[in-house]
Amino acid sequence: MAEHEIETIVERRESIAGIPTLELDDAAGEVVIIDQTRLPGEVVLEHLRTREEAFRAIQRLEVRGAPAIGVFAAMALYLDARHWLEAHPTAASEDVWERLLETRAYLDSSRPTAVNLSWATRRMLTAVATDPTCSACTPLDPELMVDGLAREARAIRDEDVASCRAIGEHGLSLIADGFGVLTHCNAGRLCAVEYGTATAPIYLAKEHGMALRAYCDETRPLLQGARLTALELMAAGVDTTLLCDHMSNSLMATGAVDAIFVGADRIAANGDTANKIGTSMLALAAAEHGVPFYVCAPTSTFDATCATGADIPIEMRDPAEVTELHYAKRMAPAGVKVYNPAFDVTPARNIAAIVTEKGVLRPPFERSIAQALGIPTR
Amino acid sequence: MAEHEIETIVERRESIAGIPTLELDDAAGEVVIIDQTRLPGEVVLEHLRTREEAFRAIQRLEVRGAPAIGVFAAMALYLDARHWLEAHPTAASEDVWERLLETRAYLDSSRPTAVNLSWATRRMLTAVATDPTCSACTPLDPELMVDGLAREARAIRDEDVASCRAIGEHGLSLIADGFGVLTHCNAGRLCAVEYGTATAPIYLAKEHGMALRAYCDETRPLLQGARLTALELMAAGVDTTLLCDHMSNSLMATGAVDAIFVGADRIAANGDTANKIGTSMLALAAAEHGVPFYVCAPTSTFDATCATGADIPIEMRDPAEVTELHYAKRMAPAGVKVYNPAFDVTPARNIAAIVTEKGVLRPPFERSIAQALGIPTR
Repeated sequence: MAEHEIETIVERRESIAGIPTLELDDAAGEVVIIDQTRLPGEVVLEHLRTREEAFRAIQRLEVRGAPAIGVFAAMALYLDARHWLEAHPTAASEDVWERLLETRAYLDSSRPTAVNLSWATRRMLTAVATDPTCSACTPLDPELMVDGLAREARAIRDEDVASCRAIGEHGLSLIADGFGVLTHCNAGRLCAVEYGTATAPIYLAKEHGMALRAYCDETRPLLQGARLTALELMAAGVDTTLLCDHMSNSLMATGAVDAIFVGADRIAANGDTANKIGTSMLALAAAEHGVPFYVCAPTSTFDATCATGADIPIEMRDPAEVTELHYAKRMAPAGVKVYNPAFDVTPARNIAAIVTEKGVLRPPFERSIAQALGIPTR
Repeated sequence: MAEHEIETIVERRESIAGIPTLELDDAAGEVVIIDQTRLPGEVVLEHLRTREEAFRAIQRLEVRGAPAIGVFAAMALYLDARHWLEAHPTAASEDVWERLLETRAYLDSSRPTAVNLSWATRRMLTAVATDPTCSACTPLDPELMVDGLAREARAIRDEDVASCRAIGEHGLSLIADGFGVLTHCNAGRLCAVEYGTATAPIYLAKEHGMALRAYCDETRPLLQGARLTALELMAAGVDTTLLCDHMSNSLMATGAVDAIFVGADRIAANGDTANKIGTSMLALAAAEHGVPFYVCAPTSTFDATCATGADIPIEMRDPAEVTELHYAKRMAPAGVKVYNPAFDVTPARNIAAIVTEKGVLRPPFERSIAQALGIPTR
């Protein structure tokens, strides 16, 4: 379906407070999301019914963040199968299965680099077929298939919430009432369903009645810290201060920061951590001022195929993100070369601990990570 | 005169290449400046004749940077006296003196925190009176006064050019053909008359036929690096790459940077250096990667009344610079607190050398700075 044919139902709100990042409304047959491209200026909820709407929401980054995209795609795959079966009540199992395969491929193509997206859609198919790659295998009865998809989508969602909450609970052991906590980019509840990863200890502290001061790096060039993290923390009633990314060393020199929590895109077997560009420089400043630097991530972020951070490929992004994006007019001379890596690698030696859903991992990380993953160590 | 009554003559150009930051056109009775508020998108030269135009150009930051403001104010003070005497040919010395005092106070008020501004206007008055604070002293003949002002304005200009060139020549000893050189903010020729301070070694290297690669931190939130430094280096034919401020650690990890040159706002007696926010974090990354970190500044930047950086006051600036300035729409949640210091202090231990017009000062800086200033050391 062409884009201009999609008319999504939208709803305006005053604040994101109390509104989930994304939510399955089973009665209405919809997924409701906060359109993150409108934040922080406008809070617009989108009610998405079709796979075309879901595709567009991922592609336009209306829903973003690895965990959120996975959960969202699972919900969208379930809803598409359900709506399709409602429109085709006499369809056979094979027909539903064909539709599922087609929709899975379609959704996977909305953001091919999002590993969590294909992971979630694959898991959905696995849940309703003995072998989803085996076309000769007989799938379940159509109604049972849809029920199975609904269950699996909810399971993926619930597991994400539980994982983030567990990260928050373990992270809580690292902070105390009155702490100043700094974070970079958005590893917040807006990239997950609830809690987020780097923000989970802050939200858990809030639940426990502790008063923290949160500091958010704005996170150039996409400004996830300014647009999303500052917004979600303020909406949750957290005392929030924004700063430019290169101001954190100056801020730490004032003694305002007691701990740093960041997320991770990929963690090598030795603990070297790829995360949003700027993270490694923040870790240097933390080391300079003796501020403990914590990485918060589910154990699914560990990539045992990377021995060290040197094995993690770094994506280079569009120069226009630095020179033009978000600005009223271009802010750099025409034709200037731009260095714009998406991530950088923070060496394990600058990381005090990695907070996972299974507990707080301490150096030496080769050992603690292997133990968390159940890999035998020498 | 009210602002809307000023109709400044403007002239559009394709590029800033070969155009001075500011220039006295004695025949026309004008100062011609590049309007820096229009850069990098538009190159507009302004022909300024009156003190009101000069006031506005400083206040609106059309001319900026300590050295440039000082030279500009000197030229404006001379031109105002000359035009006033042309309009009042029978005026007595005392009348010209009164006008001078009035215009000095007026220009000084255009940017009260710019120390170089009042330093330059004071020096202009001193040049044409035995004691400019003594109203009973007899000044020179009116025509001789105007001649003296012209000479002094040119002297201030020429000294700035010579000082920047000397910094460049001394800095040249620190670099080699093929070097990658990184700088922060704009301590370039656009904040001076020619050469600048931190960029002077790059321009001198260019004059000597060396091929450098220049890297410019964009320098949030005012983006002087993206808007001005990248532009002036490209206009001079230097291979220039732009990056966000928190990307420099990642860039240095690639081995692309051989030396860092930055300017200074104030340098304490022990070498601790206040410069644009982010400089101290850049110095940490330089130390991590063994990249030498050089501060380029005239000896007038040393403040012997500050024993260490702790004595240097840090100005806090408007939150809107971080949340709104330059953007098409506000990029942070309404009401968020903002940490926006203008400067930070780089500890002397992270500075390899301070490059002045008198030579390259090396640690221990207490000693080398005192020697450069002619202060007796124990």
